[in-house]
Amino acid sequence: MLFRSGVETDGSKDPIEAEQRFRRAIDFLCAYSIDKNYGYRFALEAKPNEPRGHMYFPTTGHYLAFIPTLRHPEMVGVNPEVAHEHMAGLNFCHGVAQAIGADKLFHIDLNDQEFGRYDQDFRFGAANPKGAFFLVKLLEESRYQGFKHFDAHAYRTSDRDDVIEFARGCMRTYLILKDKARQWSEDSVVRSLLKQINRGGKDLDALSVRYSKAHAETLRAMKFDRESLASRPLPYEKLDQRTMEILMGV
Amino acid sequence: MLFRSGVETDGSKDPIEAEQRFRRAIDFLCAYSIDKNYGYRFALEAKPNEPRGHMYFPTTGHYLAFIPTLRHPEMVGVNPEVAHEHMAGLNFCHGVAQAIGADKLFHIDLNDQEFGRYDQDFRFGAANPKGAFFLVKLLEESRYQGFKHFDAHAYRTSDRDDVIEFARGCMRTYLILKDKARQWSEDSVVRSLLKQINRGGKDLDALSVRYSKAHAETLRAMKFDRESLASRPLPYEKLDQRTMEILMGV
Amino acid sequence: MLFRSGVETDGSKDPIEAEQRFRRAIDFLCAYSIDKNYGYRFALEAKPNEPRGHMYFPTTGHYLAFIPTLRHPEMVGVNPEVAHEHMAGLNFCHGVAQAIGADKLFHIDLNDQEFGRYDQDFRFGAANPKGAFFLVKLLEESRYQGFKHFDAHAYRTSDRDDVIEFARGCMRTYLILKDKARQWSEDSVVRSLLKQINRGGKDLDALSVRYSKAHAETLRAMKFDRESLASRPLPYEKLDQRTMEILMGV
Amino acid sequence: MLFRSGVETDGSKDPIEAEQRFRRAIDFLCAYSIDKNYGYRFALEAKPNEPRGHMYFPTTGHYLAFIPTLRHPEMVGVNPEVAHEHMAGLNFCHGVAQAIGADKLFHIDLNDQEFGRYDQDFRFGAANPKGAFFLVKLLEESRYQGFKHFDAHAYRTSDRDDVIEFARGCMRTYLILKDKARQWSEDSVVRSLLKQINRGGKDLDALSVRYSKAHAETLRAMKFDRESLASRPLPYEKLDQRTMEILMGV
Repeated sequence: MLFRSGVETDGSKDPIEAEQRFRRAIDFLCAYSIDKNYGYRFALEAKPNEPRGHMYFPTTGHYLAFIPTLRHPEMVGVNPEVAHEHMAGLNFCHGVAQAIGADKLFHIDLNDQEFGRYDQDFRFGAANPKGAFFLVKLLEESRYQGFKHFDAHAYRTSDRDDVIEFARGCMRTYLILKDKARQWSEDSVVRSLLKQINRGGKDLDALSVRYSKAHAETLRAMKFDRESLASRPLPYEKLDQRTMEILMGV
Repeated sequence: MLFRSGVETDGSKDPIEAEQRFRRAIDFLCAYSIDKNYGYRFALEAKPNEPRGHMYFPTTGHYLAFIPTLRHPEMVGVNPEVAHEHMAGLNFCHGVAQAIGADKLFHIDLNDQEFGRYDQDFRFGAANPKGAFFLVKLLEESRYQGFKHFDAHAYRTSDRDDVIEFARGCMRTYLILKDKARQWSEDSVVRSLLKQINRGGKDLDALSVRYSKAHAETLRAMKFDRESLASRPLPYEKLDQRTMEILMGV
Repeated sequence: MLFRSGVETDGSKDPIEAEQRFRRAIDFLCAYSIDKNYGYRFALEAKPNEPRGHMYFPTTGHYLAFIPTLRHPEMVGVNPEVAHEHMAGLNFCHGVAQAIGADKLFHIDLNDQEFGRYDQDFRFGAANPKGAFFLVKLLEESRYQGFKHFDAHAYRTSDRDDVIEFARGCMRTYLILKDKARQWSEDSVVRSLLKQINRGGKDLDALSVRYSKAHAETLRAMKFDRESLASRPLPYEKLDQRTMEILMGV
Repeated sequence: MLFRSGVETDGSKDPIEAEQRFRRAIDFLCAYSIDKNYGYRFALEAKPNEPRGHMYFPTTGHYLAFIPTLRHPEMVGVNPEVAHEHMAGLNFCHGVAQAIGADKLFHIDLNDQEFGRYDQDFRFGAANPKGAFFLVKLLEESRYQGFKHFDAHAYRTSDRDDVIEFARGCMRTYLILKDKARQWSEDSVVRSLLKQINRGGKDLDALSVRYSKAHAETLRAMKFDRESLASRPLPYEKLDQRTMEILMGV
């Protein structure tokens, strides 16, 4: 659910109090659902502005921070929307990853839009196909099982036939990108580049898994040579260009 | 502390794994500090981009969501910076309010910058004086006792004298706005407008403080008349204009 | 007049042809007005997006470039709007200055809005009071005699009384800033800083007024010492802080 | 050439005078080049900010407006850069089209970047492949013969090999998109959609080519039926999705 609460003028509300009121409202709804045995869960949808000048909880991150402060955090998750995070110029995929890591991705709104704009709700993948590719890859690889909802709308010039093309386009683009994500993961060039990028660092990883005095001592005793560390190739340009070419189907 | 971790290309790192690695690093540092009796606390500073194309934990909200997932969340808080939240076009004051509400405002970086720009680090209040006013009001009214750090820098044309003027300007502006915040709270017009805006709703507040079957029944039985609710004056324009005039000293 | 022409998808129109069609339309309207002796002039109002994803002629600069390509350029000027240039994160004052320099400021729409947002149309000065100050200073000092139009609207919560406060607020803020602009120009600290900033460079100015072989030779023979040039104080921080304090009325 | 002139504080310079000084400088350079028979032409490169808070001539449109005010406008054109227009969130292709329409596209800087960011100078096509596609299509269809300059830089993690991959990637992406642009123009689905979109309007076009009393009378006598006009299918979603699929190579 998308709460439109926010302000045009910060004189009108105390922002600490505003969060508390919202918390009480969600706590109340959760208790009511429990009481009635409804079995509801709530998915909170962030948006930085519009229709309010500044909405509280502008991004998915702000809702992920809010949830642990509730009485029934297990009943509440997030519903990130591509367009809304793009309004703040954020990498949508990263916000979704944080939600998945917290086991809070209850629902997702797939659409698209350019950064720093009014709420455009374009067809999935229409504005930022590369971002859409990494999103689909994340959703598929993390085995997200929830709803995938295309919360978009066709251009206002569209008639019924074109609205159908629009809906089909959302789904087709998702499926095309899903196929490309698989192709990317199996691509021998990509695999070899990732191997090269990720080799090394194993010692450090082992040490950092869990703190111990011994690990800390080992770490302190290690020598880090700036030049030899920097000499390890990180062929990110090659990887990104390969990604682009898989995306462009060549 | 400001972690520069992020990506230019999302092909290079798994964002879920990236968060886990960062979590292990902070857990390790906390355990080390405990082990050594250092008594450290850590304040995490968000930034959406620059020098990376997309940095993980782009806003203070994302860090507030991360902290409860740590082994020693009580040792970790946030260090919001005006300029960094403005890069994402967010209302800085709201992010700080959420940090205060979570008791996680360990430190604050006061500077300024315009929305959707490179990291400008301007003199406090220089770009968005109205935002600065509401921030100072919040910090003073919430009785924040931590450091106030002016993480800004003078224009690169500045010589030593002008750098001193710059530093003095940061402090003067803070103090001027502090005085105006007090003046605002005592202003009879503002008080009367707030009274008018906040009257009503007392019944609902009482009902929502804590869930009970009885409260839920009462609430369900209430009638809400859209027209009479909408007829209650909300003189936000008058309040905001009064705020502007206090800010402009007229 | 605000033309909403633009595209959601660049596949649908040829942008060179689109400009030509618009040119023919304006040429036609001008010829019709001449033919009928209406004495009309046309003021073109730029906007980067909304309702279209990308509108042609996104800024006042693009219209100033378009006008000299018309059959009757003397009949056509611009109507810059604060909110529209702010949508693209541009300094409104600079665009208006270019229009004044080209003698093309036929009309002006005064309102306000934050950068990178939907079209907010806020009360004049409400979002960016410092930008509004420099705009009023420019309009007054350049002796602009045209209409000053407050193309803004009150918050949608406003009732009739609050709409009146909103309208009064637009005008009051303009008049307050006009008074502050006069005060700024007469301020002894500002005057002394500007003198310091602008001293020097007179020789270069004289040489560059108009090209001549002799001027070019003199210029080539001049020695520029980087260090001594850089040692000239440019107290911009002091000037900007003084500006802020005049703006805040202290 | 990229002029870094601009301001952090608008108190420091008069923006009308600043434009005049810049005009005198360009006039002087042109006259000097003529005088010396150098045969130079000048290509002006716009940028909205960085390193200055606000640079004068923030977009290509502002320079296209400036050029006709020079003494030797025929010697001066523009050098649009993808990244710089994207900083202001503008559609790069439209700005280039206006430059081509004015016969002022002297040079072009191909790179990429996300909207509302620091100057990223990414590999061509890396951020916004759809925008890059329409740009290449425009350059090829308009038979632009000037330099195509990749003013980009590799990630700072790149070693020599990865810089070579980066440079190759810029060129490969251009050539891939050039091929796709040809494919798009020859695609039977695209052609049929464009035919459908562009049918009709021929009468109006004929009338508007040049003003005449007779044309004006005919136009005034025409009846426009809103409903029948709106019933004409404009399958933009289908066209855009088809474009996406050609771009993704499926």
